Parts: sequence; C-alpha cells; structure tokens
Amino acid sequence: MNPDRIKRLLEAVAAGERSPDDALRDLADLPYSDLGFAKLDLHRELRNGLPEAVFGEGKELADLKAIVERLVQAHGRALVTRLGPDAGAELASTLPEAVFHERARVLTCGRGALLPGAIAVLAAGTSDLGVAEEAAVCADWFGHPVERCYDVGVAGLHRLLGNLPALRRADVVIAVAGMDGALPTVVASLVPAPVVAVPTSVGYGSSFGGLAALLTMLNACAPGIGVVNIDNGYGAAVLASRIVRGRTPIRTTP
Amino acid sequence: MNPDRIKRLLEAVAAGERSPDDALRDLADLPYSDLGFAKLDLHRELRNGLPEAVFGEGKELADLKAIVERLVQAHGRALVTRLGPDAGAELASTLPEAVFHERARVLTCGRGALLPGAIAVLAAGTSDLGVAEEAAVCADWFGHPVERCYDVGVAGLHRLLGNLPALRRADVVIAVAGMDGALPTVVASLVPAPVVAVPTSVGYGSSFGGLAALLTMLNACAPGIGVVNIDNGYGAAVLASRIVRGRTPIRTTP
Amino acid sequence: MNPDRIKRLLEAVAAGERSPDDALRDLADLPYSDLGFAKLDLHRELRNGLPEAVFGEGKELADLKAIVERLVQAHGRALVTRLGPDAGAELASTLPEAVFHERARVLTCGRGALLPGAIAVLAAGTSDLGVAEEAAVCADWFGHPVERCYDVGVAGLHRLLGNLPALRRADVVIAVAGMDGALPTVVASLVPAPVVAVPTSVGYGSSFGGLAALLTMLNACAPGIGVVNIDNGYGAAVLASRIVRGRTPIRTTP
Amino acid sequence: MNPDRIKRLLEAVAAGERSPDDALRDLADLPYSDLGFAKLDLHRELRNGLPEAVFGEGKELADLKAIVERLVQAHGRALVTRLGPDAGAELASTLPEAVFHERARVLTCGRGALLPGAIAVLAAGTSDLGVAEEAAVCADWFGHPVERCYDVGVAGLHRLLGNLPALRRADVVIAVAGMDGALPTVVASLVPAPVVAVPTSVGYGSSFGGLAALLTMLNACAPGIGVVNIDNGYGAAVLASRIVRGRTPIRTTP
Amino acid sequence: MNPDRIKRLLEAVAAGERSPDDALRDLADLPYSDLGFAKLDLHRELRNGLPEAVFGEGKELADLKAIVERLVQAHGRALVTRLGPDAGAELASTLPEAVFHERARVLTCGRGALLPGAIAVLAAGTSDLGVAEEAAVCADWFGHPVERCYDVGVAGLHRLLGNLPALRRADVVIAVAGMDGALPTVVASLVPAPVVAVPTSVGYGSSFGGLAALLTMLNACAPGIGVVNIDNGYGAAVLASRIVRGRTPIRTTP
Amino acid sequence: MNPDRIKRLLEAVAAGERSPDDALRDLADLPYSDLGFAKLDLHRELRNGLPEAVFGEGKELADLKAIVERLVQAHGRALVTRLGPDAGAELASTLPEAVFHERARVLTCGRGALLPGAIAVLAAGTSDLGVAEEAAVCADWFGHPVERCYDVGVAGLHRLLGNLPALRRADVVIAVAGMDGALPTVVASLVPAPVVAVPTSVGYGSSFGGLAALLTMLNACAPGIGVVNIDNGYGAAVLASRIVRGRTPIRTTP
Amino acid sequence: MNPDRIKRLLEAVAAGERSPDDALRDLADLPYSDLGFAKLDLHRELRNGLPEAVFGEGKELADLKAIVERLVQAHGRALVTRLGPDAGAELASTLPEAVFHERARVLTCGRGALLPGAIAVLAAGTSDLGVAEEAAVCADWFGHPVERCYDVGVAGLHRLLGNLPALRRADVVIAVAGMDGALPTVVASLVPAPVVAVPTSVGYGSSFGGLAALLTMLNACAPGIGVVNIDNGYGAAVLASRIVRGRTPIRTTP
Amino acid sequence: MNPDRIKRLLEAVAAGERSPDDALRDLADLPYSDLGFAKLDLHRELRNGLPEAVFGEGKELADLKAIVERLVQAHGRALVTRLGPDAGAELASTLPEAVFHERARVLTCGRGALLPGAIAVLAAGTSDLGVAEEAAVCADWFGHPVERCYDVGVAGLHRLLGNLPALRRADVVIAVAGMDGALPTVVASLVPAPVVAVPTSVGYGSSFGGLAALLTMLNACAPGIGVVNIDNGYGAAVLASRIVRGRTPIRTTP
Repeated sequence: MNPDRIKRLLEAVAAGERSPDDALRDLADLPYSDLGFAKLDLHRELRNGLPEAVFGEGKELADLKAIVERLVQAHGRALVTRLGPDAGAELASTLPEAVFHERARVLTCGRGALLPGAIAVLAAGTSDLGVAEEAAVCADWFGHPVERCYDVGVAGLHRLLGNLPALRRADVVIAVAGMDGALPTVVASLVPAPVVAVPTSVGYGSSFGGLAALLTMLNACAPGIGVVNIDNGYGAAVLASRIVRGRTPIRTTP
Repeated sequence: MNPDRIKRLLEAVAAGERSPDDALRDLADLPYSDLGFAKLDLHRELRNGLPEAVFGEGKELADLKAIVERLVQAHGRALVTRLGPDAGAELASTLPEAVFHERARVLTCGRGALLPGAIAVLAAGTSDLGVAEEAAVCADWFGHPVERCYDVGVAGLHRLLGNLPALRRADVVIAVAGMDGALPTVVASLVPAPVVAVPTSVGYGSSFGGLAALLTMLNACAPGIGVVNIDNGYGAAVLASRIVRGRTPIRTTP
Repeated sequence: MNPDRIKRLLEAVAAGERSPDDALRDLADLPYSDLGFAKLDLHRELRNGLPEAVFGEGKELADLKAIVERLVQAHGRALVTRLGPDAGAELASTLPEAVFHERARVLTCGRGALLPGAIAVLAAGTSDLGVAEEAAVCADWFGHPVERCYDVGVAGLHRLLGNLPALRRADVVIAVAGMDGALPTVVASLVPAPVVAVPTSVGYGSSFGGLAALLTMLNACAPGIGVVNIDNGYGAAVLASRIVRGRTPIRTTP
Repeated sequence: MNPDRIKRLLEAVAAGERSPDDALRDLADLPYSDLGFAKLDLHRELRNGLPEAVFGEGKELADLKAIVERLVQAHGRALVTRLGPDAGAELASTLPEAVFHERARVLTCGRGALLPGAIAVLAAGTSDLGVAEEAAVCADWFGHPVERCYDVGVAGLHRLLGNLPALRRADVVIAVAGMDGALPTVVASLVPAPVVAVPTSVGYGSSFGGLAALLTMLNACAPGIGVVNIDNGYGAAVLASRIVRGRTPIRTTP
Repeated sequence: MNPDRIKRLLEAVAAGERSPDDALRDLADLPYSDLGFAKLDLHRELRNGLPEAVFGEGKELADLKAIVERLVQAHGRALVTRLGPDAGAELASTLPEAVFHERARVLTCGRGALLPGAIAVLAAGTSDLGVAEEAAVCADWFGHPVERCYDVGVAGLHRLLGNLPALRRADVVIAVAGMDGALPTVVASLVPAPVVAVPTSVGYGSSFGGLAALLTMLNACAPGIGVVNIDNGYGAAVLASRIVRGRTPIRTTP
Repeated sequence: MNPDRIKRLLEAVAAGERSPDDALRDLADLPYSDLGFAKLDLHRELRNGLPEAVFGEGKELADLKAIVERLVQAHGRALVTRLGPDAGAELASTLPEAVFHERARVLTCGRGALLPGAIAVLAAGTSDLGVAEEAAVCADWFGHPVERCYDVGVAGLHRLLGNLPALRRADVVIAVAGMDGALPTVVASLVPAPVVAVPTSVGYGSSFGGLAALLTMLNACAPGIGVVNIDNGYGAAVLASRIVRGRTPIRTTP
Repeated sequence: MNPDRIKRLLEAVAAGERSPDDALRDLADLPYSDLGFAKLDLHRELRNGLPEAVFGEGKELADLKAIVERLVQAHGRALVTRLGPDAGAELASTLPEAVFHERARVLTCGRGALLPGAIAVLAAGTSDLGVAEEAAVCADWFGHPVERCYDVGVAGLHRLLGNLPALRRADVVIAVAGMDGALPTVVASLVPAPVVAVPTSVGYGSSFGGLAALLTMLNACAPGIGVVNIDNGYGAAVLASRIVRGRTPIRTTP
Repeated sequence: MNPDRIKRLLEAVAAGERSPDDALRDLADLPYSDLGFAKLDLHRELRNGLPEAVFGEGKELADLKAIVERLVQAHGRALVTRLGPDAGAELASTLPEAVFHERARVLTCGRGALLPGAIAVLAAGTSDLGVAEEAAVCADWFGHPVERCYDVGVAGLHRLLGNLPALRRADVVIAVAGMDGALPTVVASLVPAPVVAVPTSVGYGSSFGGLAALLTMLNACAPGIGVVNIDNGYGAAVLASRIVRGRTPIRTTP
C-alpha cells in the first residue's frame, strides 16, 4: 500500500540486511495503533489526506480521552464529532487546548496548517444551524477558510440572491437544508462551483427524518451536486476538503 | 341531502298528496343513472359544482361511449381522462363534437359556461407537459381562463422570474414538476395566490415514480401549497376550480 | 422584485439624484432584518400577503423573544408555532399582549385586521384536536372568521351529516384526520368548497406516523382536495387564507 | 391430525388387527396426491372446510389441466384463479363442464352444495370490478348466495346509502376498493356485519400499487374490518365463507 | 338511517301532528351527546351491535372520567383502551365498579350480557401478551366466552399442535404474533374457523415496528385470515365479535 | 415427532399395557413445562441442538428469575439476551453462578461442553461492539472457541488484511457492521468460510436504523453470506453454531 | 494475498535472482484474465473454494460465449445463471458439453468433483420452483449431492412433516418460499441443520416483489437461519456449499 | 444577476441614453430562446460553466432535432442523454457531425475545448457499463481527459488494488456500482481524491432498483464521497467537471 516503504524493504532484502522471513513479518506489521478496544488508523492522513476523526456518540468518556490523547500524540491534533453538551464540556475540561463547539457538537484539539480553497457553508433555516456548524467547524479544523451564510432558504429567495457575491467567491459550496431540501438545487443553478448537499432531519411529519430532503437533493434538476448522508456535516466537510485539495498533490515527498 | 326536495316531499305528505310509505320510497329513489356496469352520479354538479368526469384507463371503448353519451344527454358535456392515443382517436371519431387532446390524454365534449377566475398552469420541464396539459385542458373545459407557462423549472431561475407578471395575474397557480419538485416552493415564496402542486413521475432512479417530488412539495418551506396525487392533472384542475369559485355562490336559486 | 421601488430608483438615477453606483448598492440592500442568528423576512407580507411566522421547536427562549419583539415592532403582530407548554407559558409571561394557546401549541401577539372568507375547521377525532386548533388559531390570527366542528369522523357518519349546513356556509374547509384519514374524501364529496386536508400522526402501528392518512388523502376518490404535511395545522391555515383571499387584490396601493 | 382416524387405528392395534410397525407406516401415509411437480392437498376440505384451489398464474396449461382433472376426480369440482383470457379460454375448451369467468379471471368446474350465509360483494369503482368479481365468483362456487353491489364508492355517498337495505341483509360484507380505500370504513360504521376489506392496485401515482388503500383499511377508524392482501378477491371469499360457516359445525359425523 | 323512526315521523306529519318544518328539524336532531370536546355516538350499538369504546391514549383524566360516566349512564357499561398504568389505576379508583386490567391496558365498567360464540385468543410469544390480553379482555367485556392459549408460536410447533383441540372448539380464532408473524398462517391451515390476525410491534431491527409481521399475515399462503392493525387487540375483538354474532339478528324488535 | 417414543407407545398398546384412550392422551402430553405465563420448550435441544434461550427485553425480573431457574434445573445452564444494565446486575446477584456481560447485554449460567468449530467474530467499528459481543458471548456459551477481531472496517482496509491469517483459521466468520455494511462482502471475497452477516442499527440518518447495512449485505456481490436480523448477535451465534456442528451428528443415541 | 507466492518471490530477491524493481512489478501482476470488456477472476477458486460464475442477464451472447470458453479453458467447467430460454438454448447449441437447465435458467459446462455434504432444497409452492431449481442445479454443479423436496409449504403442514426424515439427513437445508415466507421458520424449528432461506418474488400485491417473504425470514422466531437475496438461488447454493465444506480444509497443499 | 450588465444599464439611464421605462423592460429581457415547447437556457454556460444538455427520454425526434440544431448554432456543440438505440441512430443520421454512443445512450455533436483535470471512471461489474459509459462520454465531451477502469468490484479486491496507480493519478474518481454498492467506500479509503458515487439499478430482488446501492453509498464509512442519483452517469460527469474546474476561474473577463 505504501510503495516507497515496500521498495525500501525489498532493497534491504536484496542487500541481505533483512531475511525473507523477517520481511514477510514486516509486511504484516500494520500501520495502526491498537488500544485494545479500538485500532487507530494512523496512516489515514498519508492515504487520504486527512487524519482519522472520532465519532463520539455512544463512546465512553474514558475511551474518548485515551483515543484523543493518542491521536494528538501522533498528529498534533484531533477531532471528535457527535458529542452531547455534557460529554463535550467534560472532555474539553480534561484535555489541554481542547475546544468544545456546542452548537456543532464537535470538539477540536489543534488545527491543520492553512490550506488553499475557500468553502462556503449555507444553511436554509435556523433549525439547520447545528449541522451547518458541524460542517463549518470541521472544515476550519482541516485548515480551510470558511464563510458562513445562514438562514438563506428559498422561502425568501432574496436572502439567497443577496449573498450571491459570497457564493461566487467560494471554490465549493456546502448547502445544508431540511424540510423540502430545495436549497442546493437553486444554488447549483446559480454558481459554477461544485455543491455538497447535506439533508437534515428537520421538518414536519412527512419529512420522514430527512428522507424528503435527501430525495430532493438526489433528484435535483440542476446538476453539479454531490449528496452526503442526512445530518452528516462532518462528511460534507471532508468531501469539500478533498474537492478543494483535488488539484494540489499532497503525497509528494521532497 | 337536498333540503328543498325533502321539504316539498314533506309538504306533499302533509297535504295528503303522498302517503308515508310512498314518501319513504321516494327518499330511497337515488339521483343516479344505473347503466348496469356503472352508476352515473348525475347530481354531482348540484353537490360539488362540477359534473362527474370519466376515468378512461382500463375501460372498454363501448362502455366509454355509452357513459359519455349518457353524460352528454344529462349535462350537455362530458370529460374523459387517461385515454391512450388509439382509444382517444377512436372514441373521438364516433362521438360528434368530441375533441381528443393527445398530449393531455383527455377527450372533451362541449365546454362549461365561462367562469371567473384565472388559472395559471406551470410546468417545470418539457417532460412534465403531459400532466400540465391534462390540468390545463380540464380547467379550460370547466370554463376558466387558463394561462400556460411551460419549461420554467428552478434550474434556470430567470425563466421563472421572467414570467412573474403572468403569475401575479393568476387567481390560483397550478405548478407541475417532477424530479426534485422544487418549483411550487419557489412559486409560493414569490406570489400570494394559492398554489396547487402536482408531482409527476418523471425522473431518474431515486425519484421512485414521483415520490421524491411528492415529498418535496409536502415539505415545502414556503406555505400556501396544496398537494394532489402524482401525475393527477385532473385533480389539480378540480381543486383550482373550487378555489376560484370559492367566493361565488353556485347553489343560489332565484 | 418590487417593480414600484425599482422604477422609483431608476427615476432617481435618471434625475441625477442618485449615482449608478449608489443605485447598485440600493438594489443589493435586501429587505430583511439580520439578527445574527436569523434573517427576518420583513417583506414577506408584501410578497405573499402574510407576515413571516416563527417555527418555535428547537429554538432557545431568548432567541424567540428577540425575534418576536422584532416582528411586533415591524408588523404590530407575531405568531409562534410548535411551542411546548413550558416554553409557551414562559414566553407569554415576558411579552406584553402575548397569548399562549396551549392545545394548539401556538403563541400569538396581536391579530390581523378582519378579512373576508369563512373557514371551517373539522377534526375527525378527539386526538386530532391539537392540530386542528393550530389551524384554527392561526386562521383566526390572520383575521378570518373560523368555525370549529370537532369529532365528526366517518365512524359516525351522522355526526358529519348533522354539521352539513355549517360546512355549506364555509368558503374553504380544513379537514384534519389521523388513522384512516377518510374524512376529507367524504367532505369533498358533499360540499363544493375546496378542502384543505391535514393528516395527523395519530393512530395504531401501521399508521406509520401519519403516512397512512397522508396517502389516503392524496388518493381521495373525490377530487377538490389539497393536501398539506402531516400535523401541519399552520400550513393548512396559510393555504386556506390564500384561497379565501384569492380574488381580493392585496397588493394595491392607494 | 384427524383424531377419529388415529383412534380407529389405535383400536385396530389394540385388537391385534394391525401391527405396531404397520400402524407407524399408516401414520406416515400422508393425505396428499403427488403429481411429481405438485402435491395436491386432498384432505384440505376435511381440515379447513374448503378444497384446495389452484393459483393459475405462471403455471403451464398442461400442468393446470392435470391438476384440475385430479381435483375434479377427488372432489367433483375445481377452482382456478388468476388465469389470463387466453389460458382461461383454452383450458375451458378442453375440460368438460368448465366455465371461464373472464372479468374475474377464474375458471370453475362444478359448484359446492348450497351453503347458508348471504355474502354481499361491494366495489367502490368500475375499475375495481375484476377483483370484486373474483371474490363473487369464488364465493358462489363455494356454495353461498352472493349479492353484488358495484360502483358505490364514497365519492357519491348516496349510491352507498341507497344500497343500505341490501347491506343490512348480508351476513358478511366484502368491500373492494382502490385509490383511497375508504369504502370499508364507511360500510363498517353503518352495518353490524363483519367487513372483509380488499384493497386493489387501482389508482394514480401515490397509490403505490394498492399500498395506500391497504393502509387506509388497516387504520380504519370504524372497527370490525378484516383486511386481506391487495387484489386478493379469492382470499376475501375464503374468509367470508369461513365467517358465515363459523357457527355451523362442519366436522360432525352422525 | 333509522327507517322505523323516519316512518313514524312521516306518519305524524301525515296525521297533522307535526308540521313539515318541525319534521325537517327533527331529521337534523342527531343521536349523539355533545360534551363540548367530544361527541359521544350513543346510537352506535343500534347500528353496529357494540357501544362506542374510548381510546384512552393522550386524553386527560378528567375528560376520560366525564366520558366514561356519560357512557355508563347511557349503556350501563363502558370500555377504555390504551391506558397507561398510572392513568388506569387513578381512573379505576374514582369510578365505582371499574376494573383496570394492567397488562391489557384496558379499563372496564360492567360487562355485556352473555353472547354465544367461543373466541380463542392465541399469542405466539410472551412478549405478545399485552396485545393478546387487550383482545381477550375486550371480547370478554362484549359478553363472549374467551379461551386464552399463550406462548404457542411456531418455533415450538408441538406447543401449538398440543392445543389443537381447544382451537377446534373455537368459533373464531384471534392469533397475535410479532417477529415473523407466522402463527396465523399455520393456524389457518389447521382449523376451519376464521382467523383474525394481529401483528405486534415486537421484534429485532428489521421487524420495523411490526411491519414484517403485518406483511407476513397479509401474504399468508393459507387463506381464511383477516388482518387488523399492528398491536390492535381491541380491533381484533370487535371483528371477532361481529363474526360470531354474524348469524344472530341483533336489530330485531318484538 | 419422536418416532421411538411413538413406537414404544404403540407396542404398549399392542401388548395391552395401555388402552387406546390412554395412548391418545399420551400423544397429547407435550414436552414443555408450563409456568403459566410461559411454556418452556425443554425438548428444543433434542430437536435443534441448542436449548431455548430467553429474550430478556420487556420481561419482569421475577418472571426471568423463575424461567432461568427452571432452565438450569432442566439443562444445567441458561442464557438470557437483551438485558439492560440494571436488570442484568440485579438478576446476576440473585442467581448463583450467573455472569452478566454488560457490553453484550447477556446473562449466562453455566456453559456448554466444548464443541469443535472455531468461530471468528468481526466488528467493523467500535460502535458495533455491543452486537459483536452478544454474538461472541453466546457462541462461547454454546461451547465453541471464539476469536474476536474488532474495529476492522473497510475504511482502513489494512486493518482487515492484517487479520487475514486469523480469518483463514476460522470455520465460520460472523461479520458485524453498521453504516454501509460493506465488511461481509469484502470478507467473503477473501476467505472460503461461510460468512454470517449481522447489520447493526449504527449510523447517520439514512442508515434508517440498520436498513442500509441490511440491504448491502443482502446484495453483496461476493456470494457465501447468510444475513440475520439487524442487531441480532444471538441469532448469528446460533446460525454459526449450527454451521460448525453441521457435519457432527448430534442426534445419535448409543 | 498469496503468502507462498510472495515468500518465493522474496526468496528470489534474496538470492539475487530478481531485482527489487522487478519484484515490485511482479506484485502488481494480478491474477485475472482481461478480456477487454471483463476481467475474469481466475484465482477466485483458490481464495474462496469456488470458481467465478457468470451472471447472464443483460450480457450479449458473443460476450457470454467468450467468457465461458475462457473459464472452461482455465477450470474445465463453467456456470452461467439468469439466462432466458432463447439465449440459453442458443448458447448451449454452440458450446460442446454445455447443458441448459430451462426451469433453473442456468447453463452448465462440466461439473465439480464429488464433494461431501448433503444439501436438501425445499420449495414452498409450485411457483417457487424456478428459484429452487437454480439453487439445486448450482449445488449439483459444485459437486454436492442434492435432494429436492418441492411443494411443502406450511399451508399443508403434513406435506412438510411427511418429509422430515429427508430433512434430518441433510447437512444443510435450502428453503425457498414466496408469499408469507414462513417455511424456513418452521423448518429451523424442526431440524438442527443450518437453514439457508431464499425469499422469492412470488405473491399477491403486498408481497412487494418478495419484500414480505424477506422480512419474515429475517424476523424468524426460530434461530439458525441465514437469509440471502430475493430470488437468489445461486447465492443460496454458494452459501450452502461453503457451509458443508466448512470443516474440510481446502487450502492444504501436500 | 449579471452585475456588469445591470451597471452598464444604469449608466445608460444616468446618461439619459435610456429611459427608466425602457430599462425596466430591459431587465425583463431574459436570456433564453423560446422554441414554443421548450425554453433553451442559453446563458447556462455563463452561469454554471457548462451548456445545457438535453434529456432525450420521452421527447419526439423532431423536437430533439430542433433543440440540438439550436444548441449547436448557439454553442457549437450539443449533448443528448438517455436515447434509445433506434432514436439515437436515426438522430445521428440526420445531424452532421453527430455521434451516437450506443452503450452510453448518449449523442454528441462537437466537443468542448480541452480542460485540465483527469477523471477516472470505475465500474464495479460488467452490468454497470452502460451508466459508466454515460459518465465517461459526457466527461469527455466536456473536454476532460478520461481514464476508464471497468469490472473492478470488491468481490475481487485484487482487480481494484491492481489499478491503484491509475486511481492515484486521477483528480476525481467516478465510481459506478450496483448490487451492494460497496466500491466507492473502498476507493475513498484508498485514495485522497474526491469520489463521485453513482448507484445503478443492477441487482437481484432486494436491490429495489438501486436503492440498496444508494443507501450503501450515503452511509459509506469512508468519508469523501458525494452521491448522485441512481443510474445518473451524466450528473456524475457534471459534478466531476465542476470539481476539477473548481480552482480555475471561469468567469474572468479580460
């Protein structure tokens, strides 16, 4: 999986510095850190450009603390998503330099080096703010400049049109919307940037927990939209980050 | 159900002109015409303001002909929906004064007296034209002035905005859309008239036969929208007709 | 969007009273009030005939208070829906002239000028009262005369038939029903007014949170019905209000 | 499974007329006729009161012929459901005494002895006639008096109310309806007989192949309704037959 | 709706004892008791053979008490379903002669006169007992002899087969099952009585709140089954009661 | 069902040691223990190779205690699944030798004799551990050697590939995964052992409570996978146990 | 992926017989045969114990012929599933030794060496025969002894019970059923072998293309069942083959 | 919408070159070409970077020809998707320079100028080729270099791993997969480029027309994936094109 490392290993075998049996064992020596209850994927940044994030929901505080400390030790930063207010506050108090973003339900330690690529995060209504903030906080932690643009749903089209200049400046737009989920369609019809659409579970009965907004986005009559899971602000930020880094080789070594 | 008729009957009983037993039988004498295979509801216009229409799909041509002739005899006009091109052409050729509207899949005989109330019919895309035409032809047959405004979906917002003056003139707007079904939301946010939303079964895979557009419309973040069944142009026309006739008493007798 | 205002602006430019650059800025000066966490759409009444309402669920009390005060300042009245009993009572106690309607979960400040158009609100069962009251309280706040007619489901058809005179007087009927959702169909078959159908999430297992009633209403064999979202009493009131105001120009200026 | 036969067998063993080994084999001697490709359940009438019927769809004509002949030989009658017009006509021509009921898609040979219990079969619309006829033809073949009452959907309530006397005479009512499926609810609220509800796959888009009508019937606000599968006229007839035979012991031996 | 009463009224009009105008008003005099928040359907027993029952869920205790007292006054008995343990105990303590059946979540006052027709109530597993008890308690309150037969699911077929004699004695079988819902199919294949199938919401993930069991029952390969709503023990009891009373005229007057 | 016992009974009848009537009663003497509220299936081990387990959810503690004691008395061991932490701790404290496995939500008494067949239990993520532990604890209690392999989801393929040797040693693999549920597909493409796939209800919005993972597993492009219900670790263990015992006759008697 | 081959390669590098660069290229030399439009996975048998099969639906005849010939050349046998009657007959005529099994829609060339492990294939009804035959023909082609047992659905329980001895002889049972899908539950409660359940798309309306049967099987109250996709007879055969081969090491080399 | 044009207009008004009334009309002069039955959005390229494409399904040949000719006249190129083989061949024969790509069901006229950004198109199985080709042909027509990589599904992981170098070269990866839809998850875990996931409607029963693959992709445990509609190869190409053009300003004017 890591050609350089495999090649160096093969060269060591060729040079007699390492026996075939040892080399075979080396190949099985996997690049993760085993905490017993979890295997941290420390090479993910190498493969995918972003270090592994922690899904906080349902994990015990002690486990979370151990994972975060191990990640900070390895990467100098860590990100935990889906943290309730109590767990978030508690965890932040026991970890130096940790910040808990309550509305986003995200805890961050450190931050990535500044990356190019401006990301605009739109929210259709005030009820979609939590998911939008999750996307914005994560994108900021990755290192991207983020511009927030909230309460711009299509029920008041002038609010969206009034923010067109900001949208046109963005390299990628994350559009978060519940209920009818029509915002990404309209955005994609107005700007040339790719649109990452995030349905939220906000709405009356037949929104069916975000299904209505999800289907609207998948069926958008304006193309250029990539849809992520319901309420998945983090996933939207990762996709946006990959998009703006797309043309920048990140695997180069000097 | 018809107070006048019941009262006249009771007066006849009081006057000894009709025995109680006969009156009881009269009350059971129902206002429909039994063709054997169908019971035509000839008093529907009295109750609901519009004569019964015929759902053409799956009916035999001979049966359709008999029904239409009976309705024309009773009301001076008839309307058949959901007719395939072959059945429509054949039926039109055997009925004097019948017109078959192929794109709408509707056959009309006669037309209602001119009614007040302007109805605008919008279609999001060219694939929605069939359903939009069904709505427009039916509304026209009911007697209303109809303004068509097609291919104005939100993927090209300026096409819709360019038709705003026409929309503002309408007393009710019928908005027909498949795929993401976002058109009615945007229309309802721009004009004060009630919007009748018609989802169509047009779209790629996850439109699920119009379900996506249906859910979008039910979850519209702009209120003022009444949704009818998928592809149900006729139902939209009836609702629109009821809406514009709402303030005009149609049951008054001199 | 507001032709008069744009024309006056253009005239000012022609008269040299305003520079092109200033005019461009004016056009970008959007008709909403930005509270930071929300953008209030103060021109909505101009566009749609009704001022913006506030969806209370999930909003913080302090935010709600700020929004309501801003709306009362701009319009002289405000409406908040989906308020729990505790939040509603608390909010009502801090806002002068506010009334909290507990069963409807609605808070009102002030009321619109009396509008023409009688609205009948029907509820099929006693469990549907909350949603029906939301519709009735909102319609009343808009300024319409409202007639309530509750517990008239089709399981006791005579209860509905006994209220036919009241139904015939209405310009529009809002029919609220859970379980089988059959009430709107029967109502639409008996009266000529348009019927706004509201499915509720009331029912045993396979009602699937109101889906059964929703599908019944969309598939009603009697046409003339516009369906709104599950439990959406507010949306039904807006649609009913648009319907009865349909023929009355509301944009005229002296 | 058949206590009398087991007891007689045990008595024969006790009397030394049959060895234990033979008795064991007897118990394994199963009451079905194996045609190779199908095992006909010839004792079903003994267990359930009605002989096995044949589901015609997808079966080859030759197989159907062999099955029917074997059933007629065993019971003196046979019933095949879900037969297309071509297969039905062809099969009827090769079997003496067979009658093909085209609208019902049912083929019958012979008929059961007259049974007590009047069954009323209702159809909401003319498009539901096929399924209603399947129920009516099957119930008639079982031996029950059947009263048909078609095109009595709730869109014209007076048509249903006009047939109330006939409904009150029935021991059980089969109510067949597509679209909104509201007919069984209204019937069950008007008569004391049990109602067998049959949803049909008739309707516009969001009927979802009968799902809407099915859910309506399951959620009927008037109790006393038993629902069978979509388009399953045969199943409705079997349930109705079991109901009217319920109080008549059919297993008695002199 | 009540021919005798209408005829007597007509005779009074013919005899000059009542004016046509008064008679018209009489016809509008509906047979229900209006408590303001609810319209009790006191003639339901006349129409359907069983007095109205009260759905307890979501109703306030004071309202429930008023309703029950009015029903006891009119009929000498009352039935409330879907009562939580606290509400049930409290209500039972304030109403003389009331009994709260905790597992069934049902409160009864009085009991119907003994009716013919034996009803067997089966439950597949111990988790289905609540729904089965709701059916059994209601059927008992209607006046029918009830035989309970619990924990006889098809995972231990011998438990069911061991109860066959009891099943064969029943005039109707109510089969309650969650998870795979296979019990009614097997029962219907073994006995000739009609089977009322009640799916329950018991089960692992993909039971989807009883949907899996519901679909199984609707698709039962053994006919003779009528399905009611998920967890609807009361509805099953009403259907069973209608079935066993089917042949006994209940409207006769001396 | 038990030929030997039936044959012995028949021989006793033949020998005059037992009358036919007594023998008939004997045949009805079923192999279960009736506790009143439950019928324990004590012969299940004989039929299926594993004793009956107890589904703990929703059962009262006293009932659970009685059932467990009866099972321990009959089989020397017992297993309760789906126990909350409070109920589990309490039950464990009152039963000698009982162990409560909190993460697995399983209580065990005793353990089966060591059986052949190595079972590997895989979990895709740390949130799937509860279900995986349920499978592992149950399989261990049945008597099988179990190897756990957690946090090996396909988002870090090298973690899975690094455990291939362990997977190749297993006779059957249980693969537990939520979210996209892709783990079993990849496992089945890499090893020849049968794979038991367990979807979990873990995930963001459109996982729909495990439906997404369930469908993925059913549609796996690599064959050799048997799917069990969502979150059903116990069911997976039973299937795995049947698979590894498949070739070992368990019904032999000396 | 193939440790032996990797080790030999490393030894060649250590011996200087192969340069590190060449070895790196060797590791990329993948074990599949690229036909341009398809990449045949020729090492699948090594990994999974069974050679790759061909999914025939939608493939062109010429492509199928090329693929089969390449597979026969590599493995001496080939298997094509989901072939229509015309394509199957045509393909069989052009390939020597090919046999087309029409009912199973399967084409076979050659057959695997006899493997241990008896597989019983059950079909609930005659309409399920096609899918059952697909499973049986594939299992036979893999090399296993297969026993067919058709038309043994639970609507006639004695037909199933009469085949118990055959079921008890099987090492694994494949149970194919449409409609209610109850067969696997009952089978799993009667025999100790693992049961592979295959839902079919056979049934009336609410079977929803096999969804009802699928859910029944996933929710089976008798554990020990592994479910495969709807109509997927081939997948069932593969799982059954893996199960019976489970204890037989297939990777051993002398 | 176009600030430059508005500003120039305002300057003309200020200069007296244009009256306010004329300017108002100018603002309503919309940038589309009205063919009567369709309104071509000729400015879409300006707004979104790509000219409007034509959805061919359901459109008449003559209409298609007119639309294509108008687009070629305006842009020098045109693209029609979803064309059946007959319509495609016929249309290609009447339009000079048109090419019909049969497997992709796409017709192209001309091609965009070469754009930067390498797009890799992956297909999991041979049955997914049609959708993959739609994506590849469209992306090529837009002007991007495209690398195809087919039949690399996860059932043979080495086929995918063998193509890793090509994947690593791509700026964006389009991954097309039916059945379990697991390919994008695995790809996103291996490369840092953004992944556009396209579910296809290929698969056995419970794929439900692509729903299974769609849900898998939305729930992918590896982030960095944007999902488009089922079978929507064109939409994937548009999103990919927007992504690779993301950093290249396309609105600049000299």
